[in-house]
Amino acid sequence: VARFPDRLRALITLPMSDPAGAVAELERCASLPGLVGIMSYGRSGDTPLDDPVNDGVIAAAAHLGLPIFIHPQIPSAPVRDAAYRGFDAITELGLATFGWGWHLEAGTAALRLIARGTFDRHPELQIVLGHWGEMLLFALDRIDSLSNVAGLDRRIADCIRENVHIATSGRLTPRLLRHALDFTSIDRILLSGDYPFHRLGTEEISAFLETLPDPLDRAKLASGNARALLGLEPDDLRATVAS
Amino acid sequence: VARFPDRLRALITLPMSDPAGAVAELERCASLPGLVGIMSYGRSGDTPLDDPVNDGVIAAAAHLGLPIFIHPQIPSAPVRDAAYRGFDAITELGLATFGWGWHLEAGTAALRLIARGTFDRHPELQIVLGHWGEMLLFALDRIDSLSNVAGLDRRIADCIRENVHIATSGRLTPRLLRHALDFTSIDRILLSGDYPFHRLGTEEISAFLETLPDPLDRAKLASGNARALLGLEPDDLRATVAS
Repeated sequence: VARFPDRLRALITLPMSDPAGAVAELERCASLPGLVGIMSYGRSGDTPLDDPVNDGVIAAAAHLGLPIFIHPQIPSAPVRDAAYRGFDAITELGLATFGWGWHLEAGTAALRLIARGTFDRHPELQIVLGHWGEMLLFALDRIDSLSNVAGLDRRIADCIRENVHIATSGRLTPRLLRHALDFTSIDRILLSGDYPFHRLGTEEISAFLETLPDPLDRAKLASGNARALLGLEPDDLRATVAS
Repeated sequence: VARFPDRLRALITLPMSDPAGAVAELERCASLPGLVGIMSYGRSGDTPLDDPVNDGVIAAAAHLGLPIFIHPQIPSAPVRDAAYRGFDAITELGLATFGWGWHLEAGTAALRLIARGTFDRHPELQIVLGHWGEMLLFALDRIDSLSNVAGLDRRIADCIRENVHIATSGRLTPRLLRHALDFTSIDRILLSGDYPFHRLGTEEISAFLETLPDPLDRAKLASGNARALLGLEPDDLRATVAS
């Protein structure tokens, strides 16, 4: 990152099993060149990201203006045993990870953060969800009914529109883009690959972007939103589109 | 049901904790007038619907031509403890049920049924999922990648298009209809209320149906698909639309 400042930026992973250490490490690295955000699982061991022990990390991220990307994670052992057994080993693993479980885990983690009042306390904090929102967008009408009991300052749907960015994670699928735009705005969607599993090619990107009629919308999705979220200068990255 | 055969039909709930008893009860009731399907949770105690102990019930349903409606269910105790704790009691309950957990449970149950090869063994069996498909449709691109490891005769996306009906469960939301039609066909969507929680009114139904330009599509969604699935005569029910 230091060697190629015009091409690379960094997300930090923190030692979340040591919350005080995680805060110290975040504050140390925030002053290093190139840090633009945090990548975290939604749970460390049995402790969810929204647990009060992580309040310091969350507050530091908000204070430093660093978004938190919530990366999917294999379900906890009790959830795997209760929900994902009964198949051959590879099918069990696929069901618990890329085919279903990863996305339930990440979606649950984000929804817990919201329900815990994280964005009432830190209205400026941004999180990023991959895979078109890890099912939160599609379920938004139901999820938002939680607002009636969760005692938050804002509706959950408003938190999702104002505190959550959505990354495509390599799935450049026009039907998912159309659907996402029914629930959130074009300012919230980030073009992203899923390296090394899915390497986006120029043609694939172009064909996808062309499904948006407005050139300004295309520019936002391709790089503008990421620049704004990550605090990059307009000319800072030569090839955000391909990153 | 016997008293108002022109207005009411029945779904049966079975004693799934006693699989042999469930088969016997299903066969007994299948000969009673008015039975058109089965309503089941996706799990009985710790035993998922796809468990081999339920093969007899599944085979009987398929043989009798009775669709299985998978009703959402509160997550198992280990899942609730692992994923839905840390809030006040009412928020915990909402998160584990109507706001999120119910739908993950029902979606997981349906996906497990598919992954277990149920529809390879019974290609004529139909299941019904409420709430616009319990997240399976939105996640279909990811879910379908499980086909590469699950060793099934057909792709999972094909099973979802050919063996799954989708009920609206009271949420007459044009954006969800548009989205569902991106993943499955108009022949698979059933207009339904969510009595007594959500009682559909005539105006709400009409406004929703009018978002479909084709009158034939409106007729399918309003009652034709349900008549076909449940084996009802065209004139059998006077008011399927309002049911």
